[in-house]
Amino acid sequence: MSERLVLHEYAQSGNCYKVRLTAALLGLALERREYDIMAGETRTPDFIANVNSNGRIPVLQAGDRFIPESNAACFYLADGSDLIPAGRFDRADMLRWMFWEQYNHEPNVATMRFWVAFVGEANLTEAQRAQIPGKRAAGAAALRLMDEHLAGRDWLAGERLGLADVALYAYTHVAGEGGFRLGDYPAVQAWLARIAAEANYVPMGA
Amino acid sequence: MSERLVLHEYAQSGNCYKVRLTAALLGLALERREYDIMAGETRTPDFIANVNSNGRIPVLQAGDRFIPESNAACFYLADGSDLIPAGRFDRADMLRWMFWEQYNHEPNVATMRFWVAFVGEANLTEAQRAQIPGKRAAGAAALRLMDEHLAGRDWLAGERLGLADVALYAYTHVAGEGGFRLGDYPAVQAWLARIAAEANYVPMGA
Repeated sequence: MSERLVLHEYAQSGNCYKVRLTAALLGLALERREYDIMAGETRTPDFIANVNSNGRIPVLQAGDRFIPESNAACFYLADGSDLIPAGRFDRADMLRWMFWEQYNHEPNVATMRFWVAFVGEANLTEAQRAQIPGKRAAGAAALRLMDEHLAGRDWLAGERLGLADVALYAYTHVAGEGGFRLGDYPAVQAWLARIAAEANYVPMGA
Repeated sequence: MSERLVLHEYAQSGNCYKVRLTAALLGLALERREYDIMAGETRTPDFIANVNSNGRIPVLQAGDRFIPESNAACFYLADGSDLIPAGRFDRADMLRWMFWEQYNHEPNVATMRFWVAFVGEANLTEAQRAQIPGKRAAGAAALRLMDEHLAGRDWLAGERLGLADVALYAYTHVAGEGGFRLGDYPAVQAWLARIAAEANYVPMGA
């Protein structure tokens, strides 16, 4: 890719890490621009007008165009590479896990981490607090579903590491920060170790 | 596509309608198998073991393989067709709206419709009731974001009707059933009418 790539991000967000890990696995250089989401820096009129009307990070900037939504940004970077399976079924199966991540995994596993480790339980609203039991149960169910799926295979979709693995690695490997017990999911733990052993892997804190 | 296509569905679900609308626009024949989600028919051991470990519809069956997640099923059907833009940026931009649909639109616009029109507000749990003000506000914000985007263009991504439009049409056109006022979003209304005027369009109740 010859265009300039800039990641508008908050480094501790797993959604932003997905884009960095995808770029690293592909050997692509990425400039980084940090926003303090706790200080509302992605809700300013300038950010809304020029980066993302949805007021969220990550946003991948490719030349003068902007791609919000972490999994769409990963797809843009990986389009045409081995991180996206060549077969029609495997490609759809990869997207199946990526949509599942945004609907079933992220709102539970990632949100619990954000609430517990970043906001602090004492600072949650009543409406948020009422959701904790449901999110704990749904997050554990998501991790169990992954564990059962990975018990019989090395990667979530297709025959090798792909974007589904990157998308789900991001918040799964730090699920403990949200109070989930990764030790309960041995196949998930083995899969996390496989990803961390990949050439060009970068950790979240890099 | 020469393989047999079966949609495992609950006809009133907008997520299932997405798959039917995609198939119709492509002229693909789809067998339909109905499950009563209110009676738990997608949570049976047989369904979990053989159709979708996540216990949800829709699931697209292509030959002997299964594709859960509505937007992944639509992608499978449309792969290689004009419903997916040929350009790399437009393709990622289409996915951006589809991931946004699952994260920002569906959990608010579709869930409010399900709670109000199917479950009934009187039957909600306390934890669900506590979420209503947040979901009403987030659903209205999602519709407003679409309205502002569509004020300057005919389709959500790319230069013609695509999967992003199909994915967001499904729950947007029935948002009124969840208490949202579509009259407040004129560009959305014009876009809904453009989709309904497409050749091969099928309504949700067909």
